[in-house]
Amino acid sequence: MRRQLKDFTPQESSDPAIAMIGGGYYSANALGAKQVIDATRPLVDDALRALASLPSEKPFAIADFGAADGGTSFDLMRHIVRTVRTALPSRAITLTYTDLPFNDFSTVFRRIHGSLDADDPQPLGQESGVFTFASGTTLHRQIFPDQTLTLGFSATAMHYLSMKPGPIADHVHAVGATDEERTLYRDQATSDWTAILLARARELVPGGRLVLANFCVDERGHHLGSTGGVNVFDALAKHWRGLAAANRIWDSEYRAATFQQYYKTASEFVAPFGLDSPVTLAGLRLDHVSTIRTPCPFAAMFRQSGDAAAYAHAYVPSVRSWSQSTFVGALDPARPQGERAAIVNQLYDAYETEVAAAPELHWKDYVHCVQVFSKVQ
Amino acid sequence: MRRQLKDFTPQESSDPAIAMIGGGYYSANALGAKQVIDATRPLVDDALRALASLPSEKPFAIADFGAADGGTSFDLMRHIVRTVRTALPSRAITLTYTDLPFNDFSTVFRRIHGSLDADDPQPLGQESGVFTFASGTTLHRQIFPDQTLTLGFSATAMHYLSMKPGPIADHVHAVGATDEERTLYRDQATSDWTAILLARARELVPGGRLVLANFCVDERGHHLGSTGGVNVFDALAKHWRGLAAANRIWDSEYRAATFQQYYKTASEFVAPFGLDSPVTLAGLRLDHVSTIRTPCPFAAMFRQSGDAAAYAHAYVPSVRSWSQSTFVGALDPARPQGERAAIVNQLYDAYETEVAAAPELHWKDYVHCVQVFSKVQ
Repeated sequence: MRRQLKDFTPQESSDPAIAMIGGGYYSANALGAKQVIDATRPLVDDALRALASLPSEKPFAIADFGAADGGTSFDLMRHIVRTVRTALPSRAITLTYTDLPFNDFSTVFRRIHGSLDADDPQPLGQESGVFTFASGTTLHRQIFPDQTLTLGFSATAMHYLSMKPGPIADHVHAVGATDEERTLYRDQATSDWTAILLARARELVPGGRLVLANFCVDERGHHLGSTGGVNVFDALAKHWRGLAAANRIWDSEYRAATFQQYYKTASEFVAPFGLDSPVTLAGLRLDHVSTIRTPCPFAAMFRQSGDAAAYAHAYVPSVRSWSQSTFVGALDPARPQGERAAIVNQLYDAYETEVAAAPELHWKDYVHCVQVFSKVQ
Repeated sequence: MRRQLKDFTPQESSDPAIAMIGGGYYSANALGAKQVIDATRPLVDDALRALASLPSEKPFAIADFGAADGGTSFDLMRHIVRTVRTALPSRAITLTYTDLPFNDFSTVFRRIHGSLDADDPQPLGQESGVFTFASGTTLHRQIFPDQTLTLGFSATAMHYLSMKPGPIADHVHAVGATDEERTLYRDQATSDWTAILLARARELVPGGRLVLANFCVDERGHHLGSTGGVNVFDALAKHWRGLAAANRIWDSEYRAATFQQYYKTASEFVAPFGLDSPVTLAGLRLDHVSTIRTPCPFAAMFRQSGDAAAYAHAYVPSVRSWSQSTFVGALDPARPQGERAAIVNQLYDAYETEVAAAPELHWKDYVHCVQVFSKVQ
């Protein structure tokens, strides 16, 4: 589900628009996503110190929830495994990557078994006493048996909703919805979040820990794609609206393009932890919450190069990689595939023209809420 | 690794040669493979009865080793899960599908979560208390932590060797190798088999069970592709030799086409269970061994239809599906892809011509050795 975080290396990208991008832009998206994950490392280390002293004979079970191809979290996972191995030399360690069934699990396995990187001297999945797995079960359900998970981690995965609670008629994202529309999305996000926490509470061993970095709306109202410049979702909605106005797409298609996402505020993240709430009664405690902002690596490169056209040509595909499926999916399946591709190309071409004309107004910083939870002992 | 057993349903086949085949031939390969698996059910049921009475708080952990896309074993896995659920209503159940990293794990997960079959009223992966996983770790290594596996199952996966021990100069398979060549393959198979058993011995809980159905050479010297008619591997070797004789392929390419496989005899399967052997000392016991022959479902259909051309056009692709990669891989990578495809087409076209001319000489029964092992309590 960490769709923003796919590696944009030329070998791995099947999107010609992305494979065309030159130079350092290739890995910029992965870089930003990795920076978020690496920023959680002090909190992960705190959790590991607490976990090393837990008495247990069970395997030390680690999970990366919504891991996509496992690329951006790989360094952190290796760090976690090595830290556990040092602290608990004879303990079996399991590492499980979860995502939806259609995820590219082969890349996950090839990475951990060393066939993606010929220079990997010691593939993580082949270390003695380390056992690696995948799960295709949605993180909205319980994935592990009761009391078998020691340390759970997740980055940039839990803004996806388990279902689309309603239409957003004149925008593409809950951040631009009417109050009435947004209420449905917030309610769905609230019930999904409670379900996610209750599932994790069951999975965690007594004393187990959960470290999450989730997209959020921060205390200034900022979120991914809206941190002072042109709002990414407003821009996408504007150009999509332009296609409808030009009769390039039908009204029903215009209305159907809606991201199945909701960005929660910090207070929405902590809301389920009231006294005697189901989550509290299930034994889950909130130990830490903070927000972090990760500067857009594309914009940083533009400030160095000053090449507006090259920037637009790299930046827009980096938005396209995670947004395109929403627009393709909104088009009538009766349209020939070539026509659907042409319409979506037109959308992003218009966006690219806008960015090239005023590159200094376009960037997308990541805005995350980082949380640490523990299960009572 | 269960490459023979892929579903040949039109929806799932990306091979146009296979997608072209009409009628009942579509599912014949899957049918034969499934019959082998279903034939193990009485032995699996015996194992389940013994396992239900084991005292344990751990999850009841089931594994399908070398499961490919999970299609042919799906009914058996569902049967196992339901039997355990009935016997142990409150016990957590885990089900893990293992195969090599490049395996199609998405199809495994889509199947168990119900998105391959809209009529599946209760997807196995969404039953309460059932937790499903995949592993991309080769079955030649330990996949699960010590003493965490309750019931292991594997069909038609363990004839693959962990490495190619040497060339087979004038044939394509160990069954047609010289004595000297075959000795290397037998030695590799022997050491692989011991490693497989030692890994499973570590994984199994005390009292745990392992049920395997592996390709073998039976007491009459029969094996897959050689049960009285034309030997499939001799036929492939003959037509490959023909391409070399016609200078269509180079000598180095001719010699490079070698299946990384060995079919063990029943006595080779039981050899590691001597008194004080490492496998015996690891606590593994052999409880059952037998051989079974599963008639070729293609040949059965031909006897009904009598259409030689249609039979050849269905039978040869059913061999091609699991043998083609060996021949493609033997061709010099410097050849353009189209040329490599043309060469391999020529190989199978020649085979098809041979089958159409004398269809009554061509069939492939499966020949399996079925074994049950238990871990001492």
